[in-house]
Amino acid sequence: MKAVVKTKRAKGLSLVKVPNPVIGPREVLIKVNNASICGTDVHIYDWTRWAQQRLSPPRILGHEFVGTVAEVGEEVTVVKVGDCVSAESHLTCGHCYQCNNGNAEVCRNFKLLGVDHDGTFAEFFVLPEHVLWKNSPDIPLEWATIQEPFGNAVDTVMVEDVAAKTVLILGAGPIGLFAAGIAHACGASLVIVSDPNDYRLAISKKMGAHAAVNPRKEDVVGLVMEATKNIGVDVVLEFSGNNQALNQGLKVITPGGRISILGIYERRVNIDLNKDVIFKKVRIYGITGRKIFSTWYKTSRFLSTGMVDPGPVITHRFPLKDYEKGMKLMKDGKCGKVILTVSP
Amino acid sequence: MKAVVKTKRAKGLSLVKVPNPVIGPREVLIKVNNASICGTDVHIYDWTRWAQQRLSPPRILGHEFVGTVAEVGEEVTVVKVGDCVSAESHLTCGHCYQCNNGNAEVCRNFKLLGVDHDGTFAEFFVLPEHVLWKNSPDIPLEWATIQEPFGNAVDTVMVEDVAAKTVLILGAGPIGLFAAGIAHACGASLVIVSDPNDYRLAISKKMGAHAAVNPRKEDVVGLVMEATKNIGVDVVLEFSGNNQALNQGLKVITPGGRISILGIYERRVNIDLNKDVIFKKVRIYGITGRKIFSTWYKTSRFLSTGMVDPGPVITHRFPLKDYEKGMKLMKDGKCGKVILTVSP
Amino acid sequence: MKAVVKTKRAKGLSLVKVPNPVIGPREVLIKVNNASICGTDVHIYDWTRWAQQRLSPPRILGHEFVGTVAEVGEEVTVVKVGDCVSAESHLTCGHCYQCNNGNAEVCRNFKLLGVDHDGTFAEFFVLPEHVLWKNSPDIPLEWATIQEPFGNAVDTVMVEDVAAKTVLILGAGPIGLFAAGIAHACGASLVIVSDPNDYRLAISKKMGAHAAVNPRKEDVVGLVMEATKNIGVDVVLEFSGNNQALNQGLKVITPGGRISILGIYERRVNIDLNKDVIFKKVRIYGITGRKIFSTWYKTSRFLSTGMVDPGPVITHRFPLKDYEKGMKLMKDGKCGKVILTVSP
Amino acid sequence: MKAVVKTKRAKGLSLVKVPNPVIGPREVLIKVNNASICGTDVHIYDWTRWAQQRLSPPRILGHEFVGTVAEVGEEVTVVKVGDCVSAESHLTCGHCYQCNNGNAEVCRNFKLLGVDHDGTFAEFFVLPEHVLWKNSPDIPLEWATIQEPFGNAVDTVMVEDVAAKTVLILGAGPIGLFAAGIAHACGASLVIVSDPNDYRLAISKKMGAHAAVNPRKEDVVGLVMEATKNIGVDVVLEFSGNNQALNQGLKVITPGGRISILGIYERRVNIDLNKDVIFKKVRIYGITGRKIFSTWYKTSRFLSTGMVDPGPVITHRFPLKDYEKGMKLMKDGKCGKVILTVSP
Repeated sequence: MKAVVKTKRAKGLSLVKVPNPVIGPREVLIKVNNASICGTDVHIYDWTRWAQQRLSPPRILGHEFVGTVAEVGEEVTVVKVGDCVSAESHLTCGHCYQCNNGNAEVCRNFKLLGVDHDGTFAEFFVLPEHVLWKNSPDIPLEWATIQEPFGNAVDTVMVEDVAAKTVLILGAGPIGLFAAGIAHACGASLVIVSDPNDYRLAISKKMGAHAAVNPRKEDVVGLVMEATKNIGVDVVLEFSGNNQALNQGLKVITPGGRISILGIYERRVNIDLNKDVIFKKVRIYGITGRKIFSTWYKTSRFLSTGMVDPGPVITHRFPLKDYEKGMKLMKDGKCGKVILTVSP
Repeated sequence: MKAVVKTKRAKGLSLVKVPNPVIGPREVLIKVNNASICGTDVHIYDWTRWAQQRLSPPRILGHEFVGTVAEVGEEVTVVKVGDCVSAESHLTCGHCYQCNNGNAEVCRNFKLLGVDHDGTFAEFFVLPEHVLWKNSPDIPLEWATIQEPFGNAVDTVMVEDVAAKTVLILGAGPIGLFAAGIAHACGASLVIVSDPNDYRLAISKKMGAHAAVNPRKEDVVGLVMEATKNIGVDVVLEFSGNNQALNQGLKVITPGGRISILGIYERRVNIDLNKDVIFKKVRIYGITGRKIFSTWYKTSRFLSTGMVDPGPVITHRFPLKDYEKGMKLMKDGKCGKVILTVSP
Repeated sequence: MKAVVKTKRAKGLSLVKVPNPVIGPREVLIKVNNASICGTDVHIYDWTRWAQQRLSPPRILGHEFVGTVAEVGEEVTVVKVGDCVSAESHLTCGHCYQCNNGNAEVCRNFKLLGVDHDGTFAEFFVLPEHVLWKNSPDIPLEWATIQEPFGNAVDTVMVEDVAAKTVLILGAGPIGLFAAGIAHACGASLVIVSDPNDYRLAISKKMGAHAAVNPRKEDVVGLVMEATKNIGVDVVLEFSGNNQALNQGLKVITPGGRISILGIYERRVNIDLNKDVIFKKVRIYGITGRKIFSTWYKTSRFLSTGMVDPGPVITHRFPLKDYEKGMKLMKDGKCGKVILTVSP
Repeated sequence: MKAVVKTKRAKGLSLVKVPNPVIGPREVLIKVNNASICGTDVHIYDWTRWAQQRLSPPRILGHEFVGTVAEVGEEVTVVKVGDCVSAESHLTCGHCYQCNNGNAEVCRNFKLLGVDHDGTFAEFFVLPEHVLWKNSPDIPLEWATIQEPFGNAVDTVMVEDVAAKTVLILGAGPIGLFAAGIAHACGASLVIVSDPNDYRLAISKKMGAHAAVNPRKEDVVGLVMEATKNIGVDVVLEFSGNNQALNQGLKVITPGGRISILGIYERRVNIDLNKDVIFKKVRIYGITGRKIFSTWYKTSRFLSTGMVDPGPVITHRFPLKDYEKGMKLMKDGKCGKVILTVSP
């Protein structure tokens, strides 16, 4: 079969022929319909420091997908051939302290699809049954593809209720954009999005943002304080991974408010803990992964009812062989989500 | 001034002339623009057993209103003459165990406006400053009038998050109808309303209900289980005060779900605690009043943004002198909310 | 091997020889060291209406135990021969709406050990690996035996924080008695226990109750209100399954407080929902099972540190063959927990 | 009367004669029995940069106290002459966004006793009635004195449940030491305290710490990981205001755990947000003040029942005139809490 593979410890990827994978008794063979590109994939492409430390080639990339069950192991009990599935990308161990305490998203022994385990940029791949998610027939295939990153947005927004609250979103990459739609659907009374990329700010308006600000051109703190009549926002959602944006966010949280942080930073961060967190009684939530599977139920309901329409975020589609085009768009920031069609 | 007064211990009310009220140092005189009729007022009109035990005539009725500050006591510090205000109807003591622990809505010593303290069915009335709420200029006067019962709905819906959850509402009186709009605005993925009154069911659809069922004609339990693919609903909101409806609600909650109960029952209730609550790990929330003032902020945001449009629920307006017409409509169930205009 | 079996649809049990059980690839064979008797076992012995509807003989009874892993299936990965184990008695399916949303204790498809699956009143029995719990070496064997019912108490007490709160416990069977110890260890500032059995009230004092009341001789409501200076208790824990006790509990909860209910009732219950729940803004939690495995971690920590000493509750030990003695004591209420030693 | 006053913008304090204060209609005159010294008072003594920016002399210092009501204003309704009182040191406005949403501890307009309003290092001082707390007669006078800082510890520990959890406390000043006692009383299964001061570590053991480590001599991270069998602690409580200690704390939190931060830092902090917060799904709580008055109830119950004995933390007593001795001890770290007796 064909697959996009990190073949060696250097920049770039290769489209190569590899043997079809074989399943174990509790595993499932999946025929990929669509896969989509995540920032993580770009890091691996670019062979950044993080990628060098984390990944051992050869490895088939990709962890976002929608597919069809092609074959099931003899002890598989729930899914069956022909089912339309997506999956949790954290292959959890199921028996560590975190898995046993409802925190499987930070499993001590998890393997990451497309990083520690061959991924979705291929015609077929294999997963253990327990991470599979059967898709609702009410969700279009393209939307089903992006449920994994959409779930990141769900948890970032919903770790506390946002209804009737004011929200600032920092960073309008695909996950930040999904978050704008989710916050809007969950009854946030004000959603402001901040990002230096005007192309993405324009999409944020389509996703339900009431206001979009460009920190390169405008005074984010001043505008947020004005929009909230000097109260500040109840909720900040930080997707940018930018220390300056983080500090702007902390500055405008109203005392007693909260910030959820999913963005990844290039280096250690520097914050005014006294003024911006302690004296303001702020709650900070580190967000990672998705809750298994409560986040998937929420995601499924937002998408199957159309309460959140992720359409504006899905900006490009290419056949798998043109993955380089997608990678380039991602690096240029000239896209929302890029979908690779494999066996449409 | 003119006022609608319970003058004696018998059925009925009287429109009479009474002296203008006088304020103390921390009190405020309010000129009433609109008042609206609550089920409580109908109980007092009818002089039901509850009313006989609770109220000592003479008493001016009414606790829902929008008004204008006409005069302030010398120690009043926040509101000023001309402010457009509504108010919390629970006149709390501020120093009991409940007030001191964030549960002022169940203050041990509270007085109820229009029951223990002369109310809003009058040209003027008096309140202590600490229960007043300054209205947002973005809320139409009519909508501002109904914030008190709307707040009941806010708390019933929002005691836990409803986003991406399935919801059954039992009872489509004005508060149940507001709740349908609020649940919809907060991202409930399915809102079903049950009520024997088709007039009100029709309004529920305008408020955002996905489905409306009449328990006199349809099998509520069967329909809810079908709509949820046999899972049951995550959330039940009980406004009917009907034991049979309550039991239907308990029957269709999915294990691990919750029910909020605001409806008042004619007598003690009978429930299957083992099967419907314990073995299903259900949470039951008794709901009363509004949180002071966090519920008011939420209410204000839902209304000032138009996220919830209470328009379909406000079905009738009469001048104060025609209060009998409103009372009759309420008893006949041929209305949503009835507004009495006093000094429009 | 020898086992205590419900052989036919009639009162009584039999100690009989049965074939040794055989394990599947994901299963584990356990040699029982101790088992303990639960009220459920007494119901099955007595062949009550509940038992008649629930159980199909033949069935080996028992679901509380400590044992040693004797053999493991080929796909078992975590436990190994010789491990000292106990287990969750709910054999959950792992893929229903409840299991997938962190509510596995109300799994739609669970099988109950000793009811739907052969149990622990035997020399050996079999469990799927995923419900096993490896015991801390710091917990005495006898204490490890009773972790399953102890876990019921943990969840009943800890569904909300009890630290610096006042607590009334209704029902001083073994689980109520464990709850007294747990509430005390978790910093409850006042723990009152109510039960008509003076033998068990005496044990409650040893478990940390500040006061013990006998509702047949004393005015429970009056005493609780006096002990709390007329405020009422913050927390009620209901283990009695007695409607009258339940109503006493609801009566003395302070407005804004909560009740957790684990007790099972003989018939539907009758409560004053208006006065005792709604107007008091009370939260009611139905409690069942244990959270898998967060409750087990808490249980293990309470026992391994000695923070809770369950010793006073474990009143009798018999060899398995004398199970009739244990059953009789349970029915007479002349005991706390009764342990059956199998292979000590 | 005599009072300890910051008379001018320079280092030091003066014991001077000042006129007796006069009360307004809603105010109360308090005769001080004991006052105690807080780190804030030392900052003001030393005239640090923070003090220079925050305080305008002349000002009577002190905000921790126990006293007796000497006179009440005409509109005071709850306290009366002779009552034994302490008080919340945040004089809140009662009508801002924070006060109205249950976050009065971060009131936008609060005045701080002993900083913005004349304080407790005097024979008499004045407070508005609404911040007063009537002391339980079951609490010794000395213990009642330190309820304000004790309440800081209560909130830091109890923002989430600690029962059956493992806890690391960073910083063993008086508040950290109170926290050790509170965590122990609330059922923490392991309490480790870290501080470079051996004198204070010795007190921590008396307060219930299971282990005490000195970061100047021992490897805190290594010891905590060993004590928790490489799982890490569920809870970190940070009182040190030291960036290095903070990072040690973040390092040893188990994924899914939480940290509460009350310590104040000399400058902005530097943290590894990716590794220590985001990828570990950690919750950070900024803690300030006390919840009004729920924290006071908890404090009162811990002290009046003796569940927490703060005795070991109260190491020194001096008459008011010897305040310099107390200041010196505080600066040398050779004390726990220092009490100034005024009118014992």
